[in-house]
Amino acid sequence: MENNIKISYPDSEKVYLHGKIYPDIRVGVRRINLTPTIKMEKGKRVEKPNEPLLVYDTSGPYSDPEIDIDLRRGIPRMRESWIEGREGTQMFYAKQGIVTPEMEYVAIRETMDCKQRGIDTYITPEFVRQEVAAGRAVIPANRRHPESEPMIIGPRFRVKINTNIGNSANNSNIEEEVEKAVWSCKWGGDTIMDLSTGADIHDTREWILRNCPVPLGTVPMYQAFEKVDGKAEKLTWEIFRDTLIEQCEQGVDYFTIHCGIRLQNIHLANSRLTGMVSRGGSIISKWCQVHQKESFLYEHFDDICEICRQYDVAISLGDGLRPGSTHDANDAAQFAELDTMGELVERAWAHDVQAFIEGPGHVPMHKIKENMERQIEKCHGAPFYTLGPLVIDIAPGYDHITSAIGAAMIGWMGTAMLCYVTPKEHLGLPDKDDVRTGVIAYKIAAHAADIAKGFPGATLRDDALSKARYEFRWKDQFNLSLDPDRALEYYKQSNDVGGRYCTMCGPHFCAMRISQTIEKCDEQ
Amino acid sequence: MENNIKISYPDSEKVYLHGKIYPDIRVGVRRINLTPTIKMEKGKRVEKPNEPLLVYDTSGPYSDPEIDIDLRRGIPRMRESWIEGREGTQMFYAKQGIVTPEMEYVAIRETMDCKQRGIDTYITPEFVRQEVAAGRAVIPANRRHPESEPMIIGPRFRVKINTNIGNSANNSNIEEEVEKAVWSCKWGGDTIMDLSTGADIHDTREWILRNCPVPLGTVPMYQAFEKVDGKAEKLTWEIFRDTLIEQCEQGVDYFTIHCGIRLQNIHLANSRLTGMVSRGGSIISKWCQVHQKESFLYEHFDDICEICRQYDVAISLGDGLRPGSTHDANDAAQFAELDTMGELVERAWAHDVQAFIEGPGHVPMHKIKENMERQIEKCHGAPFYTLGPLVIDIAPGYDHITSAIGAAMIGWMGTAMLCYVTPKEHLGLPDKDDVRTGVIAYKIAAHAADIAKGFPGATLRDDALSKARYEFRWKDQFNLSLDPDRALEYYKQSNDVGGRYCTMCGPHFCAMRISQTIEKCDEQ
Repeated sequence: MENNIKISYPDSEKVYLHGKIYPDIRVGVRRINLTPTIKMEKGKRVEKPNEPLLVYDTSGPYSDPEIDIDLRRGIPRMRESWIEGREGTQMFYAKQGIVTPEMEYVAIRETMDCKQRGIDTYITPEFVRQEVAAGRAVIPANRRHPESEPMIIGPRFRVKINTNIGNSANNSNIEEEVEKAVWSCKWGGDTIMDLSTGADIHDTREWILRNCPVPLGTVPMYQAFEKVDGKAEKLTWEIFRDTLIEQCEQGVDYFTIHCGIRLQNIHLANSRLTGMVSRGGSIISKWCQVHQKESFLYEHFDDICEICRQYDVAISLGDGLRPGSTHDANDAAQFAELDTMGELVERAWAHDVQAFIEGPGHVPMHKIKENMERQIEKCHGAPFYTLGPLVIDIAPGYDHITSAIGAAMIGWMGTAMLCYVTPKEHLGLPDKDDVRTGVIAYKIAAHAADIAKGFPGATLRDDALSKARYEFRWKDQFNLSLDPDRALEYYKQSNDVGGRYCTMCGPHFCAMRISQTIEKCDEQ
Repeated sequence: MENNIKISYPDSEKVYLHGKIYPDIRVGVRRINLTPTIKMEKGKRVEKPNEPLLVYDTSGPYSDPEIDIDLRRGIPRMRESWIEGREGTQMFYAKQGIVTPEMEYVAIRETMDCKQRGIDTYITPEFVRQEVAAGRAVIPANRRHPESEPMIIGPRFRVKINTNIGNSANNSNIEEEVEKAVWSCKWGGDTIMDLSTGADIHDTREWILRNCPVPLGTVPMYQAFEKVDGKAEKLTWEIFRDTLIEQCEQGVDYFTIHCGIRLQNIHLANSRLTGMVSRGGSIISKWCQVHQKESFLYEHFDDICEICRQYDVAISLGDGLRPGSTHDANDAAQFAELDTMGELVERAWAHDVQAFIEGPGHVPMHKIKENMERQIEKCHGAPFYTLGPLVIDIAPGYDHITSAIGAAMIGWMGTAMLCYVTPKEHLGLPDKDDVRTGVIAYKIAAHAADIAKGFPGATLRDDALSKARYEFRWKDQFNLSLDPDRALEYYKQSNDVGGRYCTMCGPHFCAMRISQTIEKCDEQ
C-alpha cells in the first residue's frame, strides 16, 4: 500500500476557520482562488478581481500539504483533547444546555463564508445544540474515533451524502477499501459505511477508521453473521452484543441495526413483488421466523442503547422492510416498520443516544412526498437517511441517475442524508471509478436539495461558476465544479485553446459571445 | 460509410401491430421474450412461463431483419401512400373531425399491449384527433419525410425525448452524424434535432433525413446565418424564408424559430448573470439591436406559418431568452418571451399549423413548478418542450445527471418532450458514447415521469424486470433494461456465473435469496 496518499484540488488552498467559544477549533475548508475578470473599458484592458470561494471540505488532513500522512500510523487524532474525561453523549450535553466543541465546529463548517458575504444564517452553535437536544440532528462521533472531523446530519443543515464501500466474500482487499475511503473523502462523501462481509472484517475496519476523517458507519449484523457461518438461526443476542462492543471499541460512529422488524409484520413482505432486499433485515427476519420469536434486536433495544451511549455511537434504525422495487413502495410492510422505528427512536433519546431513520430504496416520484411526510410524523422529526430512492426499476447500469432523481427530491423535502448509489448497483461491487461517479451524482442531488430548500449561501458556488462560464474563464469554471478533473478532461477532448468559445458552437455561433456584444451595444 | 447498419436487441423480435380504421398500418414494436420462472413445488421443478413484453420502439426498419438497409438509397418510405394527394395538415384534418393514418398509428403505438393485459387506456384514435385539434398535441410529420414513423408530443401521451446531434465549424462529418442519428434511434430517441452549423449543412441533413425513422427538427437560423458569413446584421427575411423553404422541401419535420424575441424585451437580459445562451436567440437579438427594429421572425410570423402549413411542418417556438444559469431562472426576460409565445401559438393554430413551446434550461427545483404552470396558462395548453432543466450549475461533465433531475420533475408536471443533455454539455460536442449516455439518462427521466403521471401500462416493464431480478433471471433482467449491453458488461466485470446471487453481497448475504427461504417457511 502507498502510505502517503495526498489529495489536491486545482488552484485551491487548505485554510482553517477558528472557533470563538473554543478558540483551538480549526475547521478545514477549501479555498478556490479565482482569476480576475478582464474587461475592455473605453479601449483599456481592466482587471476586476474575483473573490476566492470557500467550499465545504471533506478531505480532512489529506489535502493539507503541511501534514505528513502515514497510513500505518493513522491520521492526526484531532478530537482527542476534546474527548478526554468526557462521559456524556452529544445529546446529553445538548440537553444540559452545553455547547460542545463538536457543535461549534459544525456551526462554523455549515456556514463558512456566509458572514463575510453578508448572508444571513440561522446556524449558530446554540442552534446546533438545540437541534441535537431535540433529536432533529445527529453528530455521529464515537469517542474512540478522534480522527473524525465533526459533521452534522439534520434537515435544517446541508444535505449530506454517505458512500458505501466494503468487500464481500468474493472480492476486494483491505488496501483497495482504504483507497476507496480516501477517494470518497476527496470527492465529497460526508460519511462512509464499511459494508464488508468477507474475510478480514475487523482488520479492514481498523485500517479505514484510523485513516478516516469522516464518520464511519457499519451494519454490525454482517460481522455477527460471519461468526455463525452465515446461519441466521444460530445468531444470539450475546454474539451480537459482543460484536457491537468490539466495533464500539474500534471507533465506529454509527450502527445500522434492523430493530424495527417485528415478528408480526414479517408476513407483510410475502405479497411483495421483490420480498426483502435488506441484507440485515432478511437475516433477522429469518431468525424470527425460524424461532417464532420477537427478534433479539427489538427485545434488547435498551441494552443496545446503553452500549451505544457509553461510546456516543449513533443508531441508524435500519429499514429491513424497505421496498426493493417501485411496485412495493409505500406498502404495508414498509409503513409498519416505520411505526416501530418511531417508537424506538424515542427510546434511544431517553438514553441520550442519537438516532436517525433509514428509508427506501425504490419509490416512484409521486410517492416520495408521502414517504417523507409519514417519516416526519411517525418519527418525531428524527433525521431521515434514504438510499436514493430509485424512481424507476429499468435502468441497471445507470442507477446512480435513477436514484439521484429521487434523492434530490426527497432531500429537498427534508431528508438529511442520502446514501449514494453507484452505476454498479444491482450488478456488482463498485470499483474506484464507480465510487467517484456515485459520489458526484449524490453531491449533485444534495446540492440541488440545498438550493431548493434555500440553505443559506447554497448558490454562491453556482453563481461564481456561472459568472466564470459567461466570462470564458474556463479554468475557473473547471476549478469551481464538483469534478474539476473530469470537466477539464472532456473540454480537452475537443478544444485546443481556452478561447472565447468552444467546439460546441464554434466561434460564430457562440451565444454568450454574441450576447456580450449586445450588452456592449446597449452601453454605447 | 458502412451502408447496411442494423440494430438488434438481445432476445427481442420486431413485431407489428395493425390498424382497424386503416388496416394497412403496421406499427413496429419490440417484443422482449422472457425465460420461464423455475420453482420447486413439492420437490418437483416446475416451469412457469413469463409473458413476453412489448415495448415502444424507435429503431424503425433498422431492427427488422427482413428489411435491407442501404443508406445510399434511404430507408423505406412508409408514409408515402398516406400522403399522396393530401393537402391539409394533421391539425387541419383533426379540426375537420378526420382521423388520419398517423393518428391511428400513434394511438396504437402509445398503448401497445395495454388491451391484452386488461389495462384501461383513454388513448384512442379519436382521442388523438381531439388532442391534435385542440393544439394540445403535435404529430410532427412533414409530407416530404415519408420515412418517418408517426409519433405524438403532448402532455397526455408518453413523455418523449429529443436528441441533438450535428457538427460545428470545427468538428465532425456527415458519416458520423448519420451514425449518431441511427444510434439515437437505437437507444430510444423519439426525435432528433440536427443542429449542424459547419460546412455541408444541406448534405448532412439530406443524409440524415433519408435514413431517419423519427421526426427531424432543425434551427433554420443556423443555415441562414452561414449564408451571411456569421454576420447577424446582414440577415434578411428573404434569406431566412428561402432557407425555410429549402428545408421544408428536404423534409424537416419541425423548426425551432425564435419568433418570441421582441425588441422591447431584449434589454431585460442585460441584468442577467449569464445573458443569452440561445444561439438562435442571440443572433436575432443582435439583428434587432443593430437595426433597432422588431425582428423579421416576429414580423413575418404569418408568412412563416403559411410556409409550414404547405408542408405540414410543426413550429417549435424557440426560447431565445431561456436562462443560462439557475441564477437567471424564471426572470422577467424569460417570462416576457413566454407571453409572446402564447400569442404566437394561437396565430399558428389559426393557420392549422401545429406548434409547441420550448423551455429552459437552468432552473432550480423549487422554481420548476412555477415555470410549468405559467407555460400552461400563457400558452393555452400547447405542448412544452424543455432542455433539462439543469437544477444546479456546478457539475460540468455530469450535466446529463443535473438535468435529468429537472427533466423528470417537469415531465411529471406536464412537459411533453425533454431535450436531452449529454455529459459534454458546456464543454464540447458529444461523441457517440455521449449520445448513448444522454439518451439513456433522458429515457430514465421520461419513464420516471410516465410512471409518476400514471400513464397507462407505464409500470409493466418495471414490474417485469423486478420480478426477473427477484427470481435471479439475470438474462431477463438485462434484456428488459434500457441498456442491456451496459448492464451485462457491468455484471460480467465481477461475476462469472449467473447464479442465485452476485458479487455485491456474495452467496450468504444475498437478501433476496434469504427472503425467498423465509417465504418458503411461511408456505410450510
